Amino acid sequence: MLDCAIIGGGPAGLTAGLYTTRGGLNKVVMFEKGMPGGQITMSSEIENYPGVTGHISGMDLMIPWPEQCQRFGLKHEMSEVTRVSRREDGVFTIQKSDGSMDEAKSVIVCTGSTPKRAGFTGEDTFFGRGVSTCATCDGFFYKNKEVAVIGGGDTALEEALYLAKICTKVYLIHRRDSFRSAPNTIERVKNTANIELVLNAIPEEVVGDAMGVTGIRVVFNDATTRHIDVPGVFVFVGNNVNNQVLMQEDGSFLCEMTPWGEVKVDLSMKTSVPGLYAAGDMRAEAPKQVVCAAGDGAVAALQAIAYADGHH
Amino acid sequence: MLDCAIIGGGPAGLTAGLYTTRGGLNKVVMFEKGMPGGQITMSSEIENYPGVTGHISGMDLMIPWPEQCQRFGLKHEMSEVTRVSRREDGVFTIQKSDGSMDEAKSVIVCTGSTPKRAGFTGEDTFFGRGVSTCATCDGFFYKNKEVAVIGGGDTALEEALYLAKICTKVYLIHRRDSFRSAPNTIERVKNTANIELVLNAIPEEVVGDAMGVTGIRVVFNDATTRHIDVPGVFVFVGNNVNNQVLMQEDGSFLCEMTPWGEVKVDLSMKTSVPGLYAAGDMRAEAPKQVVCAAGDGAVAALQAIAYADGHH
Repeated sequence: MLDCAIIGGGPAGLTAGLYTTRGGLNKVVMFEKGMPGGQITMSSEIENYPGVTGHISGMDLMIPWPEQCQRFGLKHEMSEVTRVSRREDGVFTIQKSDGSMDEAKSVIVCTGSTPKRAGFTGEDTFFGRGVSTCATCDGFFYKNKEVAVIGGGDTALEEALYLAKICTKVYLIHRRDSFRSAPNTIERVKNTANIELVLNAIPEEVVGDAMGVTGIRVVFNDATTRHIDVPGVFVFVGNNVNNQVLMQEDGSFLCEMTPWGEVKVDLSMKTSVPGLYAAGDMRAEAPKQVVCAAGDGAVAALQAIAYADGHH
Repeated sequence: MLDCAIIGGGPAGLTAGLYTTRGGLNKVVMFEKGMPGGQITMSSEIENYPGVTGHISGMDLMIPWPEQCQRFGLKHEMSEVTRVSRREDGVFTIQKSDGSMDEAKSVIVCTGSTPKRAGFTGEDTFFGRGVSTCATCDGFFYKNKEVAVIGGGDTALEEALYLAKICTKVYLIHRRDSFRSAPNTIERVKNTANIELVLNAIPEEVVGDAMGVTGIRVVFNDATTRHIDVPGVFVFVGNNVNNQVLMQEDGSFLCEMTPWGEVKVDLSMKTSVPGLYAAGDMRAEAPKQVVCAAGDGAVAALQAIAYADGHH
């Protein structure tokens, strides 16, 4: 029986591992089928993790994290978790893809979320080298430069407004001629002088060189095309929350979720189920920043420790 | 008119400064009368800030933070803020102890909280070198050692339980013979084999040498004394929230507070007042960890940016 099972090995999971083990829980396993570190390891540069300066990549940032946790006894199991359930006696079961199962007193789920790709040529090749899905993370790298934003929903428009304060110009590329967003957000976008709307347009290809992106080619509804010179392309066409592990056999979720599939939490990262915590990008209102995910992981861990304490 | 005024220069304030400036707000001032860095700079060692490893002090940890922010344009003003108010037009006023005033579109308050001292001899001298007010931070340094806990309230008992999982023994020193805490917390403390209750006892002096604390002398109600050999003493006798800047002329607070004087916030660090955010140890349910305060600061900053965007 584990004291705590941590599902996912990004910044939230690693910090949860650091705090649970350092807080005296003896049997803690972090389940992560790949290398720990999370999505940030795909970023070529990160400069907004507080206290870590200099030109470092997301991979560089995350290198010390697993070792820091393992020093306090965190175990990393390279398994894929398929389902987390809770028995009537309050014990959690962790089902894995190899058919085996673990039991745990408490569970911290931090499986993150995955931004959808728009599907244009070059998107994967240049991801992290000019193609980004996070304005907060990468916008500043294009200060006083021009960028393109792909999408027409709330997030795309809000991120375009964010980028417009940093960049000289934002091309907002959307496949329709109207936006699916709050009216006053649309109004603000239309009133922002350095946002150019590129409507009825589908991104076809991002082009670039060894240094990264140099431009994007879009094709319009009338089959004409346009090339836009930009060193940065931001894609906001939706987000998949990695919540599959919480889905039960009958299709319901183990705990309360938002309409967007994120886990509902309070300030302590408690879910609607006692002993179950969520942390990082999969939880409601997640700011999707490394330092925030890490903070979540610490809070959830402190709760899991107190919970295990009362249930042994 | 400032885009954002940040009150306080600990991990929350510095991270708020990093994210607001990097997010394109041009006029951001962090008001901090002393050196930036916050309370953690008094700790002789920190090993639970994710990604930063090795034997480093709290001061070492915080050294790169101000420079990281200033690179993006954050200004640090060494002033003492006495009051934050909000005019009818929605503009915030920042009153300072020298009588001058600033105006700001948004405000992030992160003035922290100050653990109370118990008042025994040697408490200040050995603070950060054996005397601590944070079990989560410093408990692990006493793994498989004995420690003393001073206090009889909820926090003292919960922290004693936390320490009991790490340390071989916890002496719980309390001036009365009963505790002011939840009945089941008291029950758990009494049922924990390695917690020894030292009741009707007042700590008189912490003694030590150049390496740190070696023991504590307590005096009982009947005037007898006892010396306890411990390398660590944890003091939990209350907490002062540094909320004075939010107090208005009529004695009311600018925004909604908890009964304990902490600022009520939601997951986005929004207070009850539009444009006013709280971050770090002064907000409700704060876990009082550097990484959590930093995460708060980032979230509050992203909100302040979006708010300024809609109010210019």
